[in-house]
Amino acid sequence: MQIMISEIKNWMKDAGEIIKEALKKEGLTVDTKTSRKDLVTNLDKQTQDYLIKQILAFDPNAKILGEENGKDQLTDLSGRVFIIDPIDGTMNFVLEHENFCIMIAVYEEGQGVLGFVYDVMKEDFLWGGRDIGVFLNEERVPKPKDCALNEGLLGMNAVMYANNIGNARIMGERSMGVRMSGCAGVELMGMALGKRVGYVSNLAPWDYAAGGILIQALGMKMSNLYGKPLQMNGREQFIAGTPQVYEELLTLSMESLK
Amino acid sequence: MQIMISEIKNWMKDAGEIIKEALKKEGLTVDTKTSRKDLVTNLDKQTQDYLIKQILAFDPNAKILGEENGKDQLTDLSGRVFIIDPIDGTMNFVLEHENFCIMIAVYEEGQGVLGFVYDVMKEDFLWGGRDIGVFLNEERVPKPKDCALNEGLLGMNAVMYANNIGNARIMGERSMGVRMSGCAGVELMGMALGKRVGYVSNLAPWDYAAGGILIQALGMKMSNLYGKPLQMNGREQFIAGTPQVYEELLTLSMESLK
Repeated sequence: MQIMISEIKNWMKDAGEIIKEALKKEGLTVDTKTSRKDLVTNLDKQTQDYLIKQILAFDPNAKILGEENGKDQLTDLSGRVFIIDPIDGTMNFVLEHENFCIMIAVYEEGQGVLGFVYDVMKEDFLWGGRDIGVFLNEERVPKPKDCALNEGLLGMNAVMYANNIGNARIMGERSMGVRMSGCAGVELMGMALGKRVGYVSNLAPWDYAAGGILIQALGMKMSNLYGKPLQMNGREQFIAGTPQVYEELLTLSMESLK
Repeated sequence: MQIMISEIKNWMKDAGEIIKEALKKEGLTVDTKTSRKDLVTNLDKQTQDYLIKQILAFDPNAKILGEENGKDQLTDLSGRVFIIDPIDGTMNFVLEHENFCIMIAVYEEGQGVLGFVYDVMKEDFLWGGRDIGVFLNEERVPKPKDCALNEGLLGMNAVMYANNIGNARIMGERSMGVRMSGCAGVELMGMALGKRVGYVSNLAPWDYAAGGILIQALGMKMSNLYGKPLQMNGREQFIAGTPQVYEELLTLSMESLK
């Protein structure tokens, strides 16, 4: 386990250096995927290829689920699965040159074992798992206080908020304030570090896998918008929070169905 | 002018150090003002007092408009006026320990002359004015490209977005994405640095004075939501953008009145 952890950290830090170097030069190639707001760059693809090469050199039998290059489907989670988001927050990467993350989750026989979220420009590296605890860089992260919704900030998806999906606007109103960063990694790291009490969004498995393992290791909860387990298969409406906030969010989303 | 600039920068950097030291200790005193979401801390008040003391030692005739301590009204802008926000983004300051700014604007005979926005934790210091240009730390900031709304990110106020005030939701939909940081200084600095094409919010003079001088010096535009000049007197709905984005936002807000 220790060897795998230090290997994964090294791959991600190396990938971060490559991305930082590339940002200093001109020549990012930006394409759209499913819509004008769904971007992918040459660096998303290169970074994913780099990570996959490292993973398969380390464990040739590993299965891989990743955002780019046609790796976005997996029939089952048996064995060891690496779930990769080479650049989470591609829009921020392109337009802000900050607030994006590299993320890797390790699942074994369907259970999330290790999560790694690296905010490249801030150089904040959050990693850990259920059995080892959670660390920011090399410092152990304490369990955040079990705050209520009216005590903290709520990360939010713009479309769900605009359309009040699952009572998302009421969730926001009851919190101390809504924040939209455009990056699931930033939001989930924020939860782990006590800067957010919850997060409401519409996410793919590579968006929540790594951060989800980490916030759960810290005693927080997550599920789909209506309390069902996440399917790790395609995009789903997502809620997460401290135990108290999770219950408050779920109560509101269930009320929206009545 | 050069002496005043370096004095102001020194005061703000000193204030930033005091705030950073205080964040390392326990014992922030948090009170509410107009609502449970309108916070003020002992450090907002201390920082404003510190800045006012420095200003009046430098210019005993200066008038001061500031967020805290009953300095939030001014009958007119004649003479030299310092507009202070000791901690812009107090909620972030309390809950995130980042994403807050110290801000000072200097007005002379009703004209914005100098603006200073200091993101304390990132140590990004944006300053300048119409006649001297705009600088990030000591590096000159180039004029951002005159982007259209569909080319960039739009900073947004949660309440205006939730209630579609002035067609705020349509503004967001036409952009590449909505961002809510909870700090006007962060948003206006983002515009100056080309990370945002516009900003829609509900702001007091100390929220927009410093950043407004800087974005205007870079060729961007701002006004109230319906195109009228900002009154520098109480809270107003606010739009700002590149020249193209400003026109797009104004067209949408005017359509909302029909």
